[in-house]
Amino acid sequence: MNTTELTLDEIYTLARTALLNAGSNEEMANIVADTVMRAERDGSHSHGLFRIPGYVASLVSGKVNADASPKVENITPVMIRCDADNGYAPLAHARCLDHLAEATKTYGIAMAQITRSHHFAALWPETEALAEKGLVAFSCVNYMPMVAPYGAKEKVYGSNPISFAWPREGKAPVVFDMATSAMAMGDIKIAARDGKELPPGVGLNKDGEPTTDPKDIDPVTGGGMILPFGGYKGSHIAMMVELLAGPLVGETVSFETAKKDNKDGGPPAGGQFILAMSPEITSGTKDWGTGADSLFDRLKSFENLRLPGERRHKNRQNTGPRSVNSELVEKILSLS
Amino acid sequence: MNTTELTLDEIYTLARTALLNAGSNEEMANIVADTVMRAERDGSHSHGLFRIPGYVASLVSGKVNADASPKVENITPVMIRCDADNGYAPLAHARCLDHLAEATKTYGIAMAQITRSHHFAALWPETEALAEKGLVAFSCVNYMPMVAPYGAKEKVYGSNPISFAWPREGKAPVVFDMATSAMAMGDIKIAARDGKELPPGVGLNKDGEPTTDPKDIDPVTGGGMILPFGGYKGSHIAMMVELLAGPLVGETVSFETAKKDNKDGGPPAGGQFILAMSPEITSGTKDWGTGADSLFDRLKSFENLRLPGERRHKNRQNTGPRSVNSELVEKILSLS
Repeated sequence: MNTTELTLDEIYTLARTALLNAGSNEEMANIVADTVMRAERDGSHSHGLFRIPGYVASLVSGKVNADASPKVENITPVMIRCDADNGYAPLAHARCLDHLAEATKTYGIAMAQITRSHHFAALWPETEALAEKGLVAFSCVNYMPMVAPYGAKEKVYGSNPISFAWPREGKAPVVFDMATSAMAMGDIKIAARDGKELPPGVGLNKDGEPTTDPKDIDPVTGGGMILPFGGYKGSHIAMMVELLAGPLVGETVSFETAKKDNKDGGPPAGGQFILAMSPEITSGTKDWGTGADSLFDRLKSFENLRLPGERRHKNRQNTGPRSVNSELVEKILSLS
Repeated sequence: MNTTELTLDEIYTLARTALLNAGSNEEMANIVADTVMRAERDGSHSHGLFRIPGYVASLVSGKVNADASPKVENITPVMIRCDADNGYAPLAHARCLDHLAEATKTYGIAMAQITRSHHFAALWPETEALAEKGLVAFSCVNYMPMVAPYGAKEKVYGSNPISFAWPREGKAPVVFDMATSAMAMGDIKIAARDGKELPPGVGLNKDGEPTTDPKDIDPVTGGGMILPFGGYKGSHIAMMVELLAGPLVGETVSFETAKKDNKDGGPPAGGQFILAMSPEITSGTKDWGTGADSLFDRLKSFENLRLPGERRHKNRQNTGPRSVNSELVEKILSLS
């Protein structure tokens, strides 16, 4: 693979220019470009520039509102509703997370429900932003049916990622962000390209039979489906995500969402559930960090164990240029 | 196995008498006996009369406060703190769940944090009680180190169960309640008794090496440890439970809790996290049930799939007597 060295500023500008040229208003282009730059910075390439063609496609097709202006309102003092106005999710977050954090610091717990949002990034940017304000955060989205519930032979659930962040004073928060599918779609595509077999339990073919061939599992090109992680227990969690990010916030479950989507390569409109809690209020002590740190210290004492988010935070220390797939850079330039 | 037929009333009375004779005050005995009877009624034997010897042991040893009187206070309008006064958890729930439900119906979301509670039952009684009031509920507890975090070779996490309940109008709620360990302790003990091998991935021996021998996995008698369900992803969820039911509510993580426990066979004192949400408020519509029902209908269309909680709700329809292990009945009578 040929790569091109780009500074973080250049990554930001490349993304921003493509979004602006696709018609995005300035505010949304700036915020999405920043999200993309931070993904590249942290080593999360699958959520970086790689997504720009999809972001652009949905602006061009008109599925995403290029001039979105999300509205934020308090339904109750602890329930923040954000109508994303069919824009990209990071713009909605920019409008509502401070609001959510404020309510949480006053009441101990609060929730943001986001609707008509196009979520195409990782979830850690929002949970980590809340943790950096000293709050515990949890978020999930549902998205595109590609996972067969445990015991079923059809695609019903999305990859349904969940993210959780725990704040630490003077240290980076502990943050996980993971799909509730057995394997990420990107890894299945890479195995297919490289002609590799997958371990048993990752997916089923189009007839719902177990297979280890990634080409047969691929929900789009192979008509197959991924399995939930962890058998029936992971399947229960995927179901919970369908409900929290769908009907609970006034949005639809993945397979209903798919019926409305124009399949232009970008993400469909959907909901997001964001929960925040103030550990200082919920624990009743300013010393809430000590007990958690004793757990983290114990976990770090194991040679093969890394705290979730650690690698990303380490990558972040490097402010130098990043190597980006040259073909991808060319493609984005051709869009600009 | 010899069994004795007991009516639900007889099960209740058997449990209640044993608790009263062990010194429990009337209110706690009534409520715990009711929880035990409902577990037997629903077919959840491992949380039924089977637990009475443990309940009694901790009353007799004085670890549990036989005359507990939990205190409930609002820290904020949506943060309900319940000091369980070192009594059994169902008594704390009886005092705080209505309070939590009321706050949730007013504000859309609310949380109960329970401390100094001895939790020895399933979690579905509390999440289901909230769902029966039209609320979405989530709860978790941490408990006794017996699970090795993914990548570690020592016991750190408890079996750390989580429960989620979704309310349905005119129908039983959809409720799951599951340990975040790969297998429940009871099933490991049964396999050991029957001389059966376990599938790979369930546990490690005392040296942290993978084994399929349930005797070597047993954390108490074999010195081994259970693995989290679903690899590193399940391990992340087990970590989240440690934090939510521990430091977030002002309590300790499992391995710190264990240091304080007197090991009398009953559960140690610890925390519990209970979250409730009003889907009518969070979704902004009275019609919040329709989208969820479309998911449940789809799930029920699969031959091999049962909605979580379905079997329990079916068992509940039978109000007749239950078959209880005769040896267990004798043992409980000898305690009374």
